Amino acid sequence: MKRVVVTGAAGFIGWHVAHLLEASGLDVVRSDLVRPQPAEDVWKKADLLSLHDVMELTRGADAVCHLGGIGDVYTAGRDPQLALNVNACGTINVIEACKRNQIPRLVFASTWEVYGTPRYQPVDENHPCSPGHPYAVSKLAADLLVQHANIADGLTTTVLRLGTAYGPRIRSTAVLASFVRRAKAHEPIVINGTGNQFRQFTHVTDIGTAFRLALEARGGSPVYNIVAEESITIKQLAELVGRLVPTQITFGPSREDDAPPARVSSLLAERELGWRAVISFREGVEDFIRNAKSELSPIADRKPAGPPSRQATYANPSAEGDLS
Amino acid sequence: MKRVVVTGAAGFIGWHVAHLLEASGLDVVRSDLVRPQPAEDVWKKADLLSLHDVMELTRGADAVCHLGGIGDVYTAGRDPQLALNVNACGTINVIEACKRNQIPRLVFASTWEVYGTPRYQPVDENHPCSPGHPYAVSKLAADLLVQHANIADGLTTTVLRLGTAYGPRIRSTAVLASFVRRAKAHEPIVINGTGNQFRQFTHVTDIGTAFRLALEARGGSPVYNIVAEESITIKQLAELVGRLVPTQITFGPSREDDAPPARVSSLLAERELGWRAVISFREGVEDFIRNAKSELSPIADRKPAGPPSRQATYANPSAEGDLS
Repeated sequence: MKRVVVTGAAGFIGWHVAHLLEASGLDVVRSDLVRPQPAEDVWKKADLLSLHDVMELTRGADAVCHLGGIGDVYTAGRDPQLALNVNACGTINVIEACKRNQIPRLVFASTWEVYGTPRYQPVDENHPCSPGHPYAVSKLAADLLVQHANIADGLTTTVLRLGTAYGPRIRSTAVLASFVRRAKAHEPIVINGTGNQFRQFTHVTDIGTAFRLALEARGGSPVYNIVAEESITIKQLAELVGRLVPTQITFGPSREDDAPPARVSSLLAERELGWRAVISFREGVEDFIRNAKSELSPIADRKPAGPPSRQATYANPSAEGDLS
Repeated sequence: MKRVVVTGAAGFIGWHVAHLLEASGLDVVRSDLVRPQPAEDVWKKADLLSLHDVMELTRGADAVCHLGGIGDVYTAGRDPQLALNVNACGTINVIEACKRNQIPRLVFASTWEVYGTPRYQPVDENHPCSPGHPYAVSKLAADLLVQHANIADGLTTTVLRLGTAYGPRIRSTAVLASFVRRAKAHEPIVINGTGNQFRQFTHVTDIGTAFRLALEARGGSPVYNIVAEESITIKQLAELVGRLVPTQITFGPSREDDAPPARVSSLLAERELGWRAVISFREGVEDFIRNAKSELSPIADRKPAGPPSRQATYANPSAEGDLS
């Protein structure tokens, strides 16, 4: 059985990726600075800033899915050096460990935010990357280093530029969690800014599937956008939550850390990996609200919220011609 | 008199920038981790990784020219984390200090190498940036952060993407210094690779002029290429040196740290800043060879080698129409 190391396995997306890869039959080694919750049988503490830790962690692995890092845009905005250090220098250690331990596959979690303000839309993988926020700059640095870490007949790397992830276990400050918590508490939902800013919210289970497909792929492109097709404005999100859990909607000041909206295309991933987001936003939000009790309680009280009942499947790669 | 802080003033380019700005009548504060040679009256030791140091350094300044960092591609290749730390995290400190100390102008030394393999040529400032080498990735991270550090009615930033600099005081491992040293020692000049790889060698005095013009400019673009127009292959360089100091030319293995060649256009800088490289490569190399004795002796024995006799001047901005 193939052994796959997942860094950042205690984090929102990493937890799901580890869960999905394990469910698909892989031997998953979870790693993070803190223990993933709920406690798992196999877990290795590793500091990405320690090459020694990362070397130990990855010894004997067949692949690494690297999701560890500062994932919260606001934390990165407050401490850009922390973001640069963990996200870029940490990734340098992961690359170095893959090379020294002769691990043939590395899949890296980048973000659609590396593109910055769009020059054309939808944004494909050829779109220039010109982000301004330290979070996105730190991810871009890592993204570029991973892309260029390929070694012929040695290491093959794949960069997945993920859409705005949502789903069970999302951090409580995320817009969806915040809206649902307020609605359930009968407090008004506060939209920051006009509410016209949009996101292609991508269910974390669909993202997990992308990692599985990337690990299975042979050859393929160095970079894929992994972003659901639906564009949802924050106002639409508020209205959807408000319909499911009736409450009032109000407006607040806009947040400067928010990335400028961009429509992003994942056609390349559909064509080459057979990946497409299959959980509609409405479904995902309904599922989230159903499970929201455990989500919104303090961490210590939480029961694990599994993935939504409907698993991500993938489009038939043979339908390729219809999509180009 | 305006006070301008120059970081990296003990380095090759920073030394010349400080020299030129001072010659143009500015009050220059030189800063570096090590004392610039020869010892100058005013020098402040500052570690770019210490916000405290950079705050102290920049207090009361009217502008900062930020050239400090890991400038050697080979050092960055050997220690990518050092490059990321000093070049990106150090720049974050410079930006933060400019904001806190309310300094209105910041000019940053980036590099043409941020573009990576060219998608079209000549490469203008709109060309996508997709470098792979840790040196260029670290400079790109800083370049993007500086671009986005503008504050309306507060801080105005300018990024100068410099060509391959050469001239007096260049580090002894640089291709020109190495060729001249070997030729003078009657050893063969060794070309790494085919010799067809080209560079737009840009004289460090012309680069110094660009910093002066950028400081004087009001408004303008956020990013300028500062790259001489002439493309010179390494073979041409070897032949030129070999004609001036007769010696044999041989070939060696190519070096993986070398950036892929790209023709870069500085038309924007010519139009908006009135900048154009005025020192031809032949002139610059002849001047370098004349002064090479002091250049090529051990650091401790060196006498300062001043800028070449011909100062950089700049194109008449009113000739703008002819150039577009």
